[in-house]
Amino acid sequence: MSIKNYIENHKERFLDEWFELLRIPSVSSKQEHKPDMIRCAERWQTLLLSTGFERAEVMPTTGNPVVYAERIISPDVPTVLVYGHYDVMPPEPLELWKSDPFEPEIRDGRVYARGADDDKGQAMIQAKGFETVLQTGMLNCNVKFILEGEEEIGSAGLETFCETNKDLLKADVILVSDTSMVSEEIPSLTTGLRGLSYWEIEVTGPNRDLHSGHFGGAVANPINVLCKLIADITDADGRITIPTFYDDVEELSAIEKEMLAKVPFSEEKYREAIDVEALLGEKGYTTLERNSCRPSFDVCGIWGGYTGEGSKTVLPSKAYAKLSCRLVPYQDSEKISRLFMDYIERVTPKYVKVRITHHHGGQAYICPIDLPAYRAAEKAFTIAFGKKPLAVRRGGSIPIIPTLEKTLGIKTILMGFGLERNAIHSPNESFEIERFYTGVEAVAEFYRLYLEGYKR
Amino acid sequence: MSIKNYIENHKERFLDEWFELLRIPSVSSKQEHKPDMIRCAERWQTLLLSTGFERAEVMPTTGNPVVYAERIISPDVPTVLVYGHYDVMPPEPLELWKSDPFEPEIRDGRVYARGADDDKGQAMIQAKGFETVLQTGMLNCNVKFILEGEEEIGSAGLETFCETNKDLLKADVILVSDTSMVSEEIPSLTTGLRGLSYWEIEVTGPNRDLHSGHFGGAVANPINVLCKLIADITDADGRITIPTFYDDVEELSAIEKEMLAKVPFSEEKYREAIDVEALLGEKGYTTLERNSCRPSFDVCGIWGGYTGEGSKTVLPSKAYAKLSCRLVPYQDSEKISRLFMDYIERVTPKYVKVRITHHHGGQAYICPIDLPAYRAAEKAFTIAFGKKPLAVRRGGSIPIIPTLEKTLGIKTILMGFGLERNAIHSPNESFEIERFYTGVEAVAEFYRLYLEGYKR
Repeated sequence: MSIKNYIENHKERFLDEWFELLRIPSVSSKQEHKPDMIRCAERWQTLLLSTGFERAEVMPTTGNPVVYAERIISPDVPTVLVYGHYDVMPPEPLELWKSDPFEPEIRDGRVYARGADDDKGQAMIQAKGFETVLQTGMLNCNVKFILEGEEEIGSAGLETFCETNKDLLKADVILVSDTSMVSEEIPSLTTGLRGLSYWEIEVTGPNRDLHSGHFGGAVANPINVLCKLIADITDADGRITIPTFYDDVEELSAIEKEMLAKVPFSEEKYREAIDVEALLGEKGYTTLERNSCRPSFDVCGIWGGYTGEGSKTVLPSKAYAKLSCRLVPYQDSEKISRLFMDYIERVTPKYVKVRITHHHGGQAYICPIDLPAYRAAEKAFTIAFGKKPLAVRRGGSIPIIPTLEKTLGIKTILMGFGLERNAIHSPNESFEIERFYTGVEAVAEFYRLYLEGYKR
Repeated sequence: MSIKNYIENHKERFLDEWFELLRIPSVSSKQEHKPDMIRCAERWQTLLLSTGFERAEVMPTTGNPVVYAERIISPDVPTVLVYGHYDVMPPEPLELWKSDPFEPEIRDGRVYARGADDDKGQAMIQAKGFETVLQTGMLNCNVKFILEGEEEIGSAGLETFCETNKDLLKADVILVSDTSMVSEEIPSLTTGLRGLSYWEIEVTGPNRDLHSGHFGGAVANPINVLCKLIADITDADGRITIPTFYDDVEELSAIEKEMLAKVPFSEEKYREAIDVEALLGEKGYTTLERNSCRPSFDVCGIWGGYTGEGSKTVLPSKAYAKLSCRLVPYQDSEKISRLFMDYIERVTPKYVKVRITHHHGGQAYICPIDLPAYRAAEKAFTIAFGKKPLAVRRGGSIPIIPTLEKTLGIKTILMGFGLERNAIHSPNESFEIERFYTGVEAVAEFYRLYLEGYKR
């Protein structure tokens, strides 16, 4: 039976199984949903067994359990590890939902529910893609499946689980369906993610708030100084001025630049959506390059002095800010964190004291487009969506992807089927039903083509 | 009875009356304290009547009421008008106070409370100085007393009140105790004050908080932009860069520079007192010149984005700051306010929206040292403090002083008893009890000597 035919014959059941998962409110950030987390993990266990995995277990971690399943056909063929998550974001604000977030409803060919996309919908696409290739007798590699229950709250338990279960998770490549495509009409695969470094800075001037009349003009004001420190971090060309900051940043290849330029993008619509008259970014790069392939520096928060109603004249003692840099592939988050802190400590003038602390960070990620698995995914998408997918980098960070690379030593193919309009993390999250089936086809095709790409 | 004896006999009562005022949280900048403003005004009314004024009234203004009292002994003798204020600055940050800001506590001979100095303590010195000269039978001029409730928020109501009550306030000189001396050991009288302009700025970037991963690097961050705007207002020499800003600033005369140089001042002690390793100010001027005779620019408060615990990656929609300039004699506050706002609107880049509003302002002030009342004050201070006071300019602003000059056409003697260590506007504001009594003596001596100085 062909892949297309198998999917056509099992459409109704696929939908029923998907809905069963969506009905479980597995909100990881709320203590009250702990029993739902277990229920959801067990439901996945049953589902993966019925899907064709030989073994499926709910395994403990330091937090919510993970679900692990595998189908080993031979020790001599490559192994694919699929990663997904069964936890979801809280549904609030509830009043903005048109239907119950945990009772999926079909409207205009779309399924509305929390998790319809992120990640129950996309993880189901992976499960049903595996089922399809298995049941049509075309599976030619080993498949391992892992689902975590803490992705939306930082994946704290997963890194340790991976560390202590390296043999269990041993594989040649990882598949993750938890990202979006550039548009409905243009399929794409995500080949890069930005990293992050996040700091908090405290600038202390005088040891107490001073009268700005009695001291103003003679004593450095820590807010003025903090503003100057921040202002000096970027130059008139929008570049970060910290020496050696760009040392490990690779310029985009001509091929990648070309692909990015093909992404449908209207600067006017982009500006209008956020209501700004002009954009600002690093000179010499397009907006899409700036927000996905170039590092950035943003003040996420600032505070100091009198911030209440009306006016208070004061030369304050302290000023604070939360600062962050998005990093790009090959920039090491820890190296940049140290570089940034050293820079701040070095350039801070001696008329104030500075304390800078590193909050957290994450590595950027890059998937080479000549990876055999990437080529298989590209081909599979071309068959399922009827168009060759664009390889694009995205500006956000998914800390677990570089962590998986570091821990297991393998690359991930970001095989995302989402779309911005699916409104993940927001009220009325949804997923188009037809797109779900196309996704299943793409995954099944990937398995069919994987070894071919591998041998090429 | 002598002035000294009268004070000695009434010490305890003076203290009790002072404490009663300190217990009323008359914070003018907060709406919630409106009832406390009335309560404080009424408490002063009672107090002034018991002090010996024949008439004392709480009179409405467009804002908080003023308290007015008078003792007219003859239409043929000069009249002294005493001005003070019963409102105080907000006590925040509360966690830095060692005792309740509105429950005065005596520690090591000092009274700790918001307003202990500014201006409840100093206004009480005036009231008790008047009581002393009256009760010892030495009063030889008319005395009018006016207390306002909006000094810390710009005295908006008082100017109109003065305009419409010119006859009521008619006098020959004004006494104000709301300033400080140069040191504990060296008495001084203030002959100049700086002016002020105060603004609030709101910078808007995108119309909502954005994901810093998806947008960072491509969209202007309003906090980064605000920091740059602020940083650009001063140059590397500590000068304000706004064109024409210094046009009306007069250079200090050689005589004034010389007097200022006589003020005992240890830069090391100054630095140590506020715990800074170095000072910062306009190139080419001494510290004392910088904080009293030169204009300054200070950010009094700044806020925007995420300011809570831990980290949140966000490209915020808005950033705010409270900005102020201290001005010097001959700089017009309104002209500078307009100049500053025009500058900000002109230099703000078009990738953000800016809204700058003028909060309040005040003119600078100068008092000639050959004024009869000035000479009487000089003599009174010499008696009470045992040393001839220095004539010095101060960096603070008391906008009402130039306003009184403009409205009533008379000069003010700035008879301040404060000290830097009293920490006005800061946590743990205090006033030394013994100094309070010396102040009462100086005021009583002024009244005794006033006509003498007048006739000279």
